[in-house]
Amino acid sequence: MTLLDPERAADIDAVVARASFDSAGLLPAVIQEEGSGQVLMLGYMNAEALRRTLSEGRVTFWSRSRQELWRKGDTSGNVQYVRAAALDCDDDALLVTVHQVGPACHTGAHACFDVDPLAPVLGGPAAHVAPAADATREANGG
Amino acid sequence: MTLLDPERAADIDAVVARASFDSAGLLPAVIQEEGSGQVLMLGYMNAEALRRTLSEGRVTFWSRSRQELWRKGDTSGNVQYVRAAALDCDDDALLVTVHQVGPACHTGAHACFDVDPLAPVLGGPAAHVAPAADATREANGG
Repeated sequence: MTLLDPERAADIDAVVARASFDSAGLLPAVIQEEGSGQVLMLGYMNAEALRRTLSEGRVTFWSRSRQELWRKGDTSGNVQYVRAAALDCDDDALLVTVHQVGPACHTGAHACFDVDPLAPVLGGPAAHVAPAADATREANGG
Repeated sequence: MTLLDPERAADIDAVVARASFDSAGLLPAVIQEEGSGQVLMLGYMNAEALRRTLSEGRVTFWSRSRQELWRKGDTSGNVQYVRAAALDCDDDALLVTVHQVGPACHTGAHACFDVDPLAPVLGGPAAHVAPAADATREANGG
């Protein structure tokens, strides 16, 4: 248990009070690595996990599969130290910037989003402003 | 409607089939800006929004408030062009890297996470390995 000064504790209580949890009492939390900017994972926090994350300098989630509080790294050693945090514009999503120790993903990958890259159709302003020569030729039947 | 070659269309169908949507049929999607690495927003996609996002080069969400498909930028002009995408290790979250035109947030902020920065207690390995001199003095009653 971290001892916080009363003003800090009241600030954190106010954040937990204004956060908008879903019908299951959860808030999605995007975890981004300090420095690299890599998005490591997405987890969920209930009110107590959010309060602990903002109070303890360590990220705590609510594990939906185990239905229990889960302080990241307590079992694996792959601790996430809190370096910054923000709610979004309608208070229903959290971004936490962390110092990640070891891999963030249970697969051993550094980030959970490293394991399943997709091949979407790419878009970009250039494609709309200046069609590629091939596309122009194709459109002209060339 | 974008015309995709059959192999590409089958690949995208396979992604939509293996994505793990929640009980409301939604998948959280983290939107990250190409280049800056800034996390712009978190939105939700149903199967059709995911299929369109992977097929059209533009990000489409499911609007939970309006209960309709919402292709980002159609009204505001603040288009998100798809530059990369990945599912996470258990297929229940999506990361989309985008080229963002204009601000991503309806408040006019560049990112939805710019508007409500918090003041969490910070953690770091240094605090655990080498307590600050003040803390050591305090622990010693100094």
